[in-house]
Amino acid sequence: MTETNTNRIPPRSGTAFTLERGQLLTVIDPEGQQVSDLVAYNAHDTEEYISSGRSLDYAARMLLTTGDILYSNRSNPMLTIMTDEVGRHDFTLTPCSRDTFRIIYGDDQPHRGCQGNLEEALAPYGITGDRIPIAFNVFMHVAVDPGTSEIKVLPPLSKAGQQVVFRAEMDLVIGMTACSAGESNNFRYKPIDYRVSSG
Amino acid sequence: MTETNTNRIPPRSGTAFTLERGQLLTVIDPEGQQVSDLVAYNAHDTEEYISSGRSLDYAARMLLTTGDILYSNRSNPMLTIMTDEVGRHDFTLTPCSRDTFRIIYGDDQPHRGCQGNLEEALAPYGITGDRIPIAFNVFMHVAVDPGTSEIKVLPPLSKAGQQVVFRAEMDLVIGMTACSAGESNNFRYKPIDYRVSSG
Repeated sequence: MTETNTNRIPPRSGTAFTLERGQLLTVIDPEGQQVSDLVAYNAHDTEEYISSGRSLDYAARMLLTTGDILYSNRSNPMLTIMTDEVGRHDFTLTPCSRDTFRIIYGDDQPHRGCQGNLEEALAPYGITGDRIPIAFNVFMHVAVDPGTSEIKVLPPLSKAGQQVVFRAEMDLVIGMTACSAGESNNFRYKPIDYRVSSG
Repeated sequence: MTETNTNRIPPRSGTAFTLERGQLLTVIDPEGQQVSDLVAYNAHDTEEYISSGRSLDYAARMLLTTGDILYSNRSNPMLTIMTDEVGRHDFTLTPCSRDTFRIIYGDDQPHRGCQGNLEEALAPYGITGDRIPIAFNVFMHVAVDPGTSEIKVLPPLSKAGQQVVFRAEMDLVIGMTACSAGESNNFRYKPIDYRVSSG
């Protein structure tokens, strides 16, 4: 693989960029215990987007890792997880938002969250807030009580420098954040690093 | 409540209708062990749609039942579960589709599934296939292995005549099916009944 520059997403912010079919996207947790909400769209038709419901159904597993495919709403492969040094991510929850902070955290002046950060980053691609689906929440550690089905958001299992590598299976627009929700990152808001390289 | 006619959704088909704020929607499993995929849209702006990711996050539970609220992608309440005689439904998987039958079942001539049935039923409301999200899958019994996270679709726990009542929290377009996937209904394709009444 051709090594390229590592980019940094500052704490509580987001970015968007294109990824060509065959390129690799490496998502790195530089300090450990941070989450990155990742969404993907077909670069040539952004009405096609990453679908947790399709992906979980086809994998027949709630937790996706190396070898698993993230499918679109049209059941086309978008990203394959090539390597995964952590093995624990979430694919059930939407990005945190002003409403998350209002409803769950009771904040008076809620942060715009990953939702707001993704909206700003994706706007140049013509993607609006209503088109932001359940994200593949890299490193997010969601535990479900097998008896009560209660959801607990726990500190990520990622250690400093650990990474996940995805391969693009079509030309994509990617949106990514350094997560803004305290619960997701043990209340220490940190950056996320990423790298794009040829396959 | 004002009683109204009971409508039948024939096996492997779907329907769509409007529901006014405050009206009640009763979903009935007339023969037992059948699933109904339910999606909802703001009747005045169909870009606002039912969101599993928001609803599960706010409930902090994977399994929703009496008293729980189904939220929209904009974090507004759409439907409240008023009574629930079964207590086991799914809110993680997308409607079965041609691709489901192709990828999971290996069918040569796959049925269009709940996805295709919803697409046809929702077309008169200007809602396209790309806008069909993860459904609230009434009576669908999805078991997740707490160790491996493996998903198993088991026969519904619903017995003949059991029902769930939802209250509309805004004016809605509802799409509903009698599920087409064998796994969901123990390979006995049955109808679903529903009733709309004033609150």
